[in-house]
Amino acid sequence: MTESGGRDSDTGRIETFSDGVFAIAITLLIIEIGVPHAEGTESLFDKLVQLWPSYLGYAISFLVIGTVWANHHNRFRLISRSDHILLFLNVVFLMCVAFIPFPTALLADYIKEEEHRVTAVAVYSGTLAVTAVFFTLLWLYAAGNYRLVDRAVDPLLLRAMTRRYVVGLLLYILAFVLAFLSPAASLGLIILLALVFVLPEPEGSRGARRTRRRSVRG
Amino acid sequence: MTESGGRDSDTGRIETFSDGVFAIAITLLIIEIGVPHAEGTESLFDKLVQLWPSYLGYAISFLVIGTVWANHHNRFRLISRSDHILLFLNVVFLMCVAFIPFPTALLADYIKEEEHRVTAVAVYSGTLAVTAVFFTLLWLYAAGNYRLVDRAVDPLLLRAMTRRYVVGLLLYILAFVLAFLSPAASLGLIILLALVFVLPEPEGSRGARRTRRRSVRG
Amino acid sequence: MTESGGRDSDTGRIETFSDGVFAIAITLLIIEIGVPHAEGTESLFDKLVQLWPSYLGYAISFLVIGTVWANHHNRFRLISRSDHILLFLNVVFLMCVAFIPFPTALLADYIKEEEHRVTAVAVYSGTLAVTAVFFTLLWLYAAGNYRLVDRAVDPLLLRAMTRRYVVGLLLYILAFVLAFLSPAASLGLIILLALVFVLPEPEGSRGARRTRRRSVRG
Amino acid sequence: MTESGGRDSDTGRIETFSDGVFAIAITLLIIEIGVPHAEGTESLFDKLVQLWPSYLGYAISFLVIGTVWANHHNRFRLISRSDHILLFLNVVFLMCVAFIPFPTALLADYIKEEEHRVTAVAVYSGTLAVTAVFFTLLWLYAAGNYRLVDRAVDPLLLRAMTRRYVVGLLLYILAFVLAFLSPAASLGLIILLALVFVLPEPEGSRGARRTRRRSVRG
Repeated sequence: MTESGGRDSDTGRIETFSDGVFAIAITLLIIEIGVPHAEGTESLFDKLVQLWPSYLGYAISFLVIGTVWANHHNRFRLISRSDHILLFLNVVFLMCVAFIPFPTALLADYIKEEEHRVTAVAVYSGTLAVTAVFFTLLWLYAAGNYRLVDRAVDPLLLRAMTRRYVVGLLLYILAFVLAFLSPAASLGLIILLALVFVLPEPEGSRGARRTRRRSVRG
Repeated sequence: MTESGGRDSDTGRIETFSDGVFAIAITLLIIEIGVPHAEGTESLFDKLVQLWPSYLGYAISFLVIGTVWANHHNRFRLISRSDHILLFLNVVFLMCVAFIPFPTALLADYIKEEEHRVTAVAVYSGTLAVTAVFFTLLWLYAAGNYRLVDRAVDPLLLRAMTRRYVVGLLLYILAFVLAFLSPAASLGLIILLALVFVLPEPEGSRGARRTRRRSVRG
Repeated sequence: MTESGGRDSDTGRIETFSDGVFAIAITLLIIEIGVPHAEGTESLFDKLVQLWPSYLGYAISFLVIGTVWANHHNRFRLISRSDHILLFLNVVFLMCVAFIPFPTALLADYIKEEEHRVTAVAVYSGTLAVTAVFFTLLWLYAAGNYRLVDRAVDPLLLRAMTRRYVVGLLLYILAFVLAFLSPAASLGLIILLALVFVLPEPEGSRGARRTRRRSVRG
Repeated sequence: MTESGGRDSDTGRIETFSDGVFAIAITLLIIEIGVPHAEGTESLFDKLVQLWPSYLGYAISFLVIGTVWANHHNRFRLISRSDHILLFLNVVFLMCVAFIPFPTALLADYIKEEEHRVTAVAVYSGTLAVTAVFFTLLWLYAAGNYRLVDRAVDPLLLRAMTRRYVVGLLLYILAFVLAFLSPAASLGLIILLALVFVLPEPEGSRGARRTRRRSVRG
């Protein structure tokens, strides 16, 4: 058993716990949608259609958390050591992820009411922006000077990743600012960001990953 | 460590996350059943008996999600690589699975009311049909031209699997259509489908599985 | 890689999913306890004390599910193969386990009301008895003629396990019957059973376990 | 496969189950925060600001459970065997952890009401103190005379750990007592404790850990 194997296991434990939180947060989204009450001759179908903001919020947040999970997981493939600051940043980051069901329910409840729409979308996009802040901090801390990242990783890849996250963060902050001008545009940008971050990552990622793993188990 | 080991690990990560979502969605079903209020001389037993639609919905959905989990898991034993489209299709598929507690609660609340029964059963069977659509798409994408499936898998097995899922999908769509004619027949078909899909899969599955694993670890 | 390795992995997948359901069901128990409302000069402390049936229900169910988890886990250490009937029995068994939060909330709500106490305790103990029925069926199916159990396991151990579960099942049925005569005695028996089943199992278990694992990995 | 490997697996199973309970308890915290109702010209923003006790409770409990998880996980790296008493103490310990969402909701609901504040903070800090009692008991039982701890662990490290937990326990009891004098000071101490326990552990931990793992897999 090599040194790096021991270190890898340190981050493995953080990953397993984080994956649990992601899976639960994403599945809890559904319990925020209450079954509508249709009495007498009211149409249940109409009542269900009126719940569209809840379905929209569910779909966007599911996509966002799914994307954040994929990115978190990919990042931890490059991070091969852990320390107490990483642990702390990760707990605060998870605190933001697990919080997402609340602004999602807020969005679903108030998106149809003109006077409250800006507040609801701003809280929603603001939560995602703060989540992005901690994700970026976590990455900058781990990747800076190869502090916790495997030394075999290509420096060009590290820089590409950093660029990716800083740009992502700026766009989430833009979504927050947009919420005050056009809530619809803000939500559109958030959906776009979730879809873009599902796209393939910069070149070199897979290679580096495979290299590192080989050194761990080989 | 071989090439295919690295690829296998790619799908392993998707499987673990998916399993978490399945386990949580299936267990969350219970919180949709509220404790009845029996006041004074009312019989608590009668109140509990009147909740039978909730128990029925719980049992059907538990069986359905359990079956879907088993099929998902079996399929990922044949899928040995992953890419971003698979990841995306899987997230949308999980979005459908995690949604199931909502139409289950709807079914439980309205199955006894004649004027709303058709809507409730249609939404329930419709959700399952959409879930089946994405499961089938996921499989067709992975298995087409051996895109992400292990090349050692018997082509006859692949075709048998595809047939199985397409037929399953058509039957779920039939259940959706039936909901408008006879809600009871629709639910009956759904229960039947859950029981049938628990049955053994076409021949060759185990062999192929064993072959692939041997190539991964051996 | 040996034959039995592949089989072991079959049950490993069932175990992981079951463990997820156990962990979620046990943790969901808390959300059935609502925060009390104390207005004006009412004592919040008194209100909290009046919630004692909720704490009692929480503690008993937590202990029961914890014990059932430990027994389930220990049994799957002896079961080295799986088939579709085992899978089905396990899903029905998990359906019972995931149901436990509902009769727990029922118990907490009605144990203080004399006219409803018998019903609440009977439903609670009845749920546990049905859970024990499926656990015993699962074991009898797997262990009968060494159907799915490792052949290296001592037959005396198998018989001791079967005796243990059949006696346990009879005692849970007794708890159900007792509910109609003395709800307190019924609950007392349930607590006793949870504590007894945490006790060490019959001799030979560890030895057999170690033997099997060696044959799997060695 | 060595003896200690089999023992290690015994605790691995406890760890996986415990990690599931931690991840679910920490993520369930959010569902205790209900979306506020803003009608007509009321400011949704003001309503959200008034919910600050809920956010505070969420943040403190998330930090506390996160810290407890990290400590539990680190401890089980030194514990290499399990027995029924450890299993029982761990179930009771998890019962306390999974209970935390309830006093958290209580804290959020009553911290602003002067007449109920002491009760709410006392119940909250009391729950954490009881949790610390069982964590310390679990450790004392496992570490006493190297009962369940790897014999390769440095005795100085064991003593440092014991000191750490006993001091932590006394400080949680102090937080409980403080609740009656100054609820704010009590909460301040709890936040401080969560932050302190995230800090690096006494020297020697990593070394011992690495030693043990080598003996298990090597």
